Amino acid sequence: MPNDLNIAIVGATGAVGAELINLLSETELPVRGLKLLASRKSAGQTLTFRGEKLTVEELSTSSFAGINLAFFSAGASRSKEFAPAAVAQGALVIDNSSAFRMDADVPLVVPEINPEDAFMHKGVIAVPNCTTIVALMALHPLHKAFHVTRVIAASYQAVSGAGAKAIAELTSQTQAQLAGKPVENVIFPHQIAFNVLPQVDIFMDSGYTKEEEKFGNESRKILHHPSLRTSITCVRVPVYRSHSVALNVEFAQPISVDQARDILAKAPGIDLVDEPARSKYPTPLAYSGRRQCAVGRVRLDSALDNGLAFWVSGDQLLKGAALNAMQIAELLVKGR
Amino acid sequence: MPNDLNIAIVGATGAVGAELINLLSETELPVRGLKLLASRKSAGQTLTFRGEKLTVEELSTSSFAGINLAFFSAGASRSKEFAPAAVAQGALVIDNSSAFRMDADVPLVVPEINPEDAFMHKGVIAVPNCTTIVALMALHPLHKAFHVTRVIAASYQAVSGAGAKAIAELTSQTQAQLAGKPVENVIFPHQIAFNVLPQVDIFMDSGYTKEEEKFGNESRKILHHPSLRTSITCVRVPVYRSHSVALNVEFAQPISVDQARDILAKAPGIDLVDEPARSKYPTPLAYSGRRQCAVGRVRLDSALDNGLAFWVSGDQLLKGAALNAMQIAELLVKGR
Repeated sequence: MPNDLNIAIVGATGAVGAELINLLSETELPVRGLKLLASRKSAGQTLTFRGEKLTVEELSTSSFAGINLAFFSAGASRSKEFAPAAVAQGALVIDNSSAFRMDADVPLVVPEINPEDAFMHKGVIAVPNCTTIVALMALHPLHKAFHVTRVIAASYQAVSGAGAKAIAELTSQTQAQLAGKPVENVIFPHQIAFNVLPQVDIFMDSGYTKEEEKFGNESRKILHHPSLRTSITCVRVPVYRSHSVALNVEFAQPISVDQARDILAKAPGIDLVDEPARSKYPTPLAYSGRRQCAVGRVRLDSALDNGLAFWVSGDQLLKGAALNAMQIAELLVKGR
Repeated sequence: MPNDLNIAIVGATGAVGAELINLLSETELPVRGLKLLASRKSAGQTLTFRGEKLTVEELSTSSFAGINLAFFSAGASRSKEFAPAAVAQGALVIDNSSAFRMDADVPLVVPEINPEDAFMHKGVIAVPNCTTIVALMALHPLHKAFHVTRVIAASYQAVSGAGAKAIAELTSQTQAQLAGKPVENVIFPHQIAFNVLPQVDIFMDSGYTKEEEKFGNESRKILHHPSLRTSITCVRVPVYRSHSVALNVEFAQPISVDQARDILAKAPGIDLVDEPARSKYPTPLAYSGRRQCAVGRVRLDSALDNGLAFWVSGDQLLKGAALNAMQIAELLVKGR
């Protein structure tokens, strides 16, 4: 990576795009120029970066001339259509979508977990699914010590994972219900206000959703652990921001709660918040807008041998997306 | 049981009490008289039963003269204090609290599951914890066919499980947050509006909460299955009514999804709502105010051998409490 970067953000007007612009204003990356790209609908808007007003341009295959680094955060179909052009024009693509995550020659990277993979890229590096990242931030340090064999999980996912319209839908439905008015749903298949929906993304032949299958496939790839068995139920909850995951994990080695807490307390990128007697545990609200994820409710699992149960919360727009992408770029600039 | 019942409801002004009065107005039980009992604070209120206004009386040890059947729904300490007096005065006590559930000589009964246990009572029959009932409504029919060995679960529990003040707190916090005003919490240890809390009830030495331990202990008792291994994470969510549970279950026998669906479709007290392609699955909102529980998201579990994952929703004030209590009374009146 050059030491003087022309950066593009594809999907600059979206929720993750906004976080990327914020993070870039604080990064140590050597930013020479920033180009904001979005669909025709959003082109022409102005956004502020380091006090300067930038006009959002319409994304096209010719958007990437002179760009060294392009963050893609506009969905899988946009990534599939435009990332090859960015790479062809010399940019490194860091992709927040699911488009390339499972491609054999695309590294899938969480810098705290598998930084070495990032350096194997052929032009594209993928950011894992937000729920996967948040869960692995706690799982990986435990895996290094005790070798995970099996993960059973259930998620509590914020509406902002489904975009700005989903956020607005939670607000409008909540207002309508409190006012005793009819509640309308457009983005979600059922009312999300004062409800929970055991569906995130589309259903697959297995009966799992795509989000649920991603969790297993991506975890196996990131951890380089093809025999890891996983099962998750992904559930949308009426929370604006930050995902939470309840995990039940089986390890090959015997484990104690004290050892696990010691390991988690020292692990990078995650806070141990685990004082049950004082009702201290992670919540999505407390970890919204924070770079760190949090883990708590650590206890010996009563249904698994060498098992541990715990609870993780983390901001899925930050560590689950924009921050993880930024950390990958910083890692590559800093070098091995 | 006599065929002409003088019934008392202890905790008549509470959430479950209100449901009991409703259900009694529709029951086939031979109700001769109804006595409504509550704490001194609530005594003097009038409530309507079958068009008649009844005055709530203050609960005392002498409240039970002539009473044949007393529903207790005023918390464990009231049950411990007053249930013995009711039994001594000749009443059968059906207790919704946790006071006696694990007592060896108190049957813990879900009529669809272990009706025969009800007839072994010595004056008190306990209604299981609401989350346990809702989960077992789906688990038990599968257990009969395939023999469950291990249950791993995560719950999504409505605020009404914590009483009327908790319902008001969700509303007031939601209004405050939408208005940009400070959010105050009294009932819950943290904000519940637009948040989820991985704590229901107090913490135990095991690191599990009391609610989580109840789930395992009560399941083993109801199913007469002392070696059943269970682990649950109980989580409060900003839903007014009805609990949901994501379950991952291991069986001794091989199982198929088609077999499981057939069994669940025929099981009493529970609807199979499982058409993923049409986004049909149970939600707490859809099953609020309904007598039936619902099960869906049935799929082979990818982390367990002979494993099945599924999702259950059910009204915890009805099947999880008042309805289950009423069904126990109906069972005893009808006889074996």
